[in-house]
Amino acid sequence: MPTHEAGALHAGIPAPAWLEVPADVNALFQPLWPRTAFKKDDAVLQVGGITVTDLAAQVGTPAYVVDETDFRARATEFKESFATAFADLAGARVHYASKALITVGIARWLVEDGLAVDVSSAGELEIVTRAGMPPDRITVHGSNKRDAYLERALATGVGRIVVDSLQEIDQVERIAAATSTVAPVQLRCSIGIEAHTHEFIATSHEDQKFGLSLADGQAMEGARRAAAAPHIEFLGIHSHIGSQIFDVEAFAQAIRRLVKFTALLDASLGGPLTELGLGGGFGVAYTTGHDPMPIPEIAQGMADLVARECQREKIGVPHVSVEPGRAIAGPAGITIYTVGVVKEVTIPGGGKRLYVSVDGGMSDNIRTALYGADYSATLASRRSAAPPRLARVVGVHCEAGDIVVEDEYLPADIAAGDILAVPVTGAYCHSMGSNYNQVPRPPIVAVRDGLANVLVRRETQADLLARDLYA
Amino acid sequence: MPTHEAGALHAGIPAPAWLEVPADVNALFQPLWPRTAFKKDDAVLQVGGITVTDLAAQVGTPAYVVDETDFRARATEFKESFATAFADLAGARVHYASKALITVGIARWLVEDGLAVDVSSAGELEIVTRAGMPPDRITVHGSNKRDAYLERALATGVGRIVVDSLQEIDQVERIAAATSTVAPVQLRCSIGIEAHTHEFIATSHEDQKFGLSLADGQAMEGARRAAAAPHIEFLGIHSHIGSQIFDVEAFAQAIRRLVKFTALLDASLGGPLTELGLGGGFGVAYTTGHDPMPIPEIAQGMADLVARECQREKIGVPHVSVEPGRAIAGPAGITIYTVGVVKEVTIPGGGKRLYVSVDGGMSDNIRTALYGADYSATLASRRSAAPPRLARVVGVHCEAGDIVVEDEYLPADIAAGDILAVPVTGAYCHSMGSNYNQVPRPPIVAVRDGLANVLVRRETQADLLARDLYA
Repeated sequence: MPTHEAGALHAGIPAPAWLEVPADVNALFQPLWPRTAFKKDDAVLQVGGITVTDLAAQVGTPAYVVDETDFRARATEFKESFATAFADLAGARVHYASKALITVGIARWLVEDGLAVDVSSAGELEIVTRAGMPPDRITVHGSNKRDAYLERALATGVGRIVVDSLQEIDQVERIAAATSTVAPVQLRCSIGIEAHTHEFIATSHEDQKFGLSLADGQAMEGARRAAAAPHIEFLGIHSHIGSQIFDVEAFAQAIRRLVKFTALLDASLGGPLTELGLGGGFGVAYTTGHDPMPIPEIAQGMADLVARECQREKIGVPHVSVEPGRAIAGPAGITIYTVGVVKEVTIPGGGKRLYVSVDGGMSDNIRTALYGADYSATLASRRSAAPPRLARVVGVHCEAGDIVVEDEYLPADIAAGDILAVPVTGAYCHSMGSNYNQVPRPPIVAVRDGLANVLVRRETQADLLARDLYA
Repeated sequence: MPTHEAGALHAGIPAPAWLEVPADVNALFQPLWPRTAFKKDDAVLQVGGITVTDLAAQVGTPAYVVDETDFRARATEFKESFATAFADLAGARVHYASKALITVGIARWLVEDGLAVDVSSAGELEIVTRAGMPPDRITVHGSNKRDAYLERALATGVGRIVVDSLQEIDQVERIAAATSTVAPVQLRCSIGIEAHTHEFIATSHEDQKFGLSLADGQAMEGARRAAAAPHIEFLGIHSHIGSQIFDVEAFAQAIRRLVKFTALLDASLGGPLTELGLGGGFGVAYTTGHDPMPIPEIAQGMADLVARECQREKIGVPHVSVEPGRAIAGPAGITIYTVGVVKEVTIPGGGKRLYVSVDGGMSDNIRTALYGADYSATLASRRSAAPPRLARVVGVHCEAGDIVVEDEYLPADIAAGDILAVPVTGAYCHSMGSNYNQVPRPPIVAVRDGLANVLVRRETQADLLARDLYA
């Protein structure tokens, strides 16, 4: 073990402005953790009625742990908040975005709890149908859908296909005609608005692959084609403005443009469009630097905006759909790791950074490296009497960018064998996981009422070699 | 299909400075392609004696294609160049860095061709041992090695363990003592030099997880401990200065510091260290913007530097090792995709970008999104009479950042069903692949002399659900 002076809070390392020194390094900052998570008197983290030390003993580390109560409560809160807010309008449907995190077990929760889902691939469609999701609650996404995916979607009888290009309109019409079905279609529009954390910009155009542009006339051309296609039922338009949106005002400009365009289509196509897809992107708090709005406020805010704009445009209010993924799965999930090497590294300028290595890394959470995402962490297996120290949590991979948590205050005596827990890893961690360095992927364990329920088992060496024809 | 004016080369889109307009959009820029790759008279790409159209028919798309001849020629060129350059010194060993791309079949080529290997996990160690790699040709890396990995390494009898921390020295000693073995150890040193594309900086310190610092005394402390440990044979020091290095001069400062430190250790530990690890990082050309040095020149340049510095320090020349991964695997591999949606998108400013969607994306090549890496591409299945047009190649994933090739000139008439080939995807594409959006991973097909040899089969839906206990 490197010697490091206890009490050297920063040791010459600059801390990010949003990161507060904790009053008690053993305490949880509750807003970041699943609702059943708390630290017991011995400071051991418990979630779903099970301590992480027991979980580690049962399933090993690293492991993704999903608080079933939290996941389902968030899903239900979305469903009910939007149902309430849109009750006096034409109703709203909440589609869980499968890409955030989907397994057959999780899809069953969504079936039971009455949510709808989005899928964006044949694989995601397969999972939700295996879970018994009623087809009319499935919306099919994708910017480049293969024939086989669309054929499967139509055969399944999905509720909606969100068509993303002029080319796809012809493709859907062709496939629907060949199978003598009628495809229920929404048209993905790019509306010139990009929303990101705490700021949003509205331009006339966007530079990305999705959708048909309102501004350059492609969306209008697409709507005409869809409305005219004999095997397409054209339900309405759809958009998605970004990720990690914290302000309902970000949707104001989007809703204005979408409702205005819906009104234009109603007039020019000779009949009211009955649906309006507003996408997802609802932000979550990864660190103390984020402060998301309560879901009922988001729902009410969006309902007010839709009602106002429809009144302004003098059209009937369409049925609305929203697509939270991260906002349901993200905060419900944590990752538990075991600490290995702890190393003090002298950095340029002479500061001493504490590098805390864990038994996972960029293979189970690429978001830190891919997006520069911030995370937090806590010592989860014991109480420490040591003072906090600014640290960086890194993984096992053979790459300098293999960072799990860029900056966090951890007890200065953190050491090999400790269990470290990282919150808000429910979304886009498992789903984007890799086998970099031939590292097997962790299991997903749902916890509830003291029971651990393995949804996805740990990957093995045999799994890794299963496709290798020379192994 | 969107209408786009043929001949609108840029259509208002800015092109990167390094990207040249091709004289013939059907032609290959040969330095980016595997040595057996060429376009036939009909402009169909052939590699390893097989056309990509035949390959696509045999194994589908997307697929990773490895030119076995090219891979083995590069590996052999490295081995022989370093053998030649260091023949009058104490010799040199070339370790292929498995993390770039490893399968049992590929490891067998390395066994047959007499290369040594690096592994950085128990999984990589398993693959190379299954391939029959002689243990003394294996070097074991990792910044956070579990006991089980070290136990396996010692039981296998690997040639070298590169120890990365003071803590690991104690760990190796404990495990070696328990198994009554002696661990052959190199010490990973951080030497305050970071090299990147066309530039390198030398500082006194580095801010990353690997190694023990020369500057702050940890490397000296580590060397003392390793030399004193009864179950460790301390062979020498090791360093790795970065990636995509194009200039042998980048190694000059590194070799100076490493040889100087070796001399210091020789004097203070009372005996000559016999080994010196110089790491990898040899650059490859991903685009026409890169121009790597010939391997023999790199080898000779490094040999001259080692000889000069050892002479200056008046020590015997140690045996040298280098660790190319990307430089062997990268240019030997290409990815073939089938084009789907082609869409013209109006961007801010009014330019029209051609988005060409393929049937893969960030799940089979995360490097574009993760590192902002540049790639190139060519229409591989036919000759086009259309003029070149600046395009962006994107994938199937439900994410705006799902970009495969940021900027490339492609024939303006590129359309659904065309096969697109992306060169230099042999390294860090398969190895960092994911199942994002439940997209199955592509196969790896080695081609040689007209034969296609599936090294790793395509992932199936069943594979994806194999770990899902509710499926």
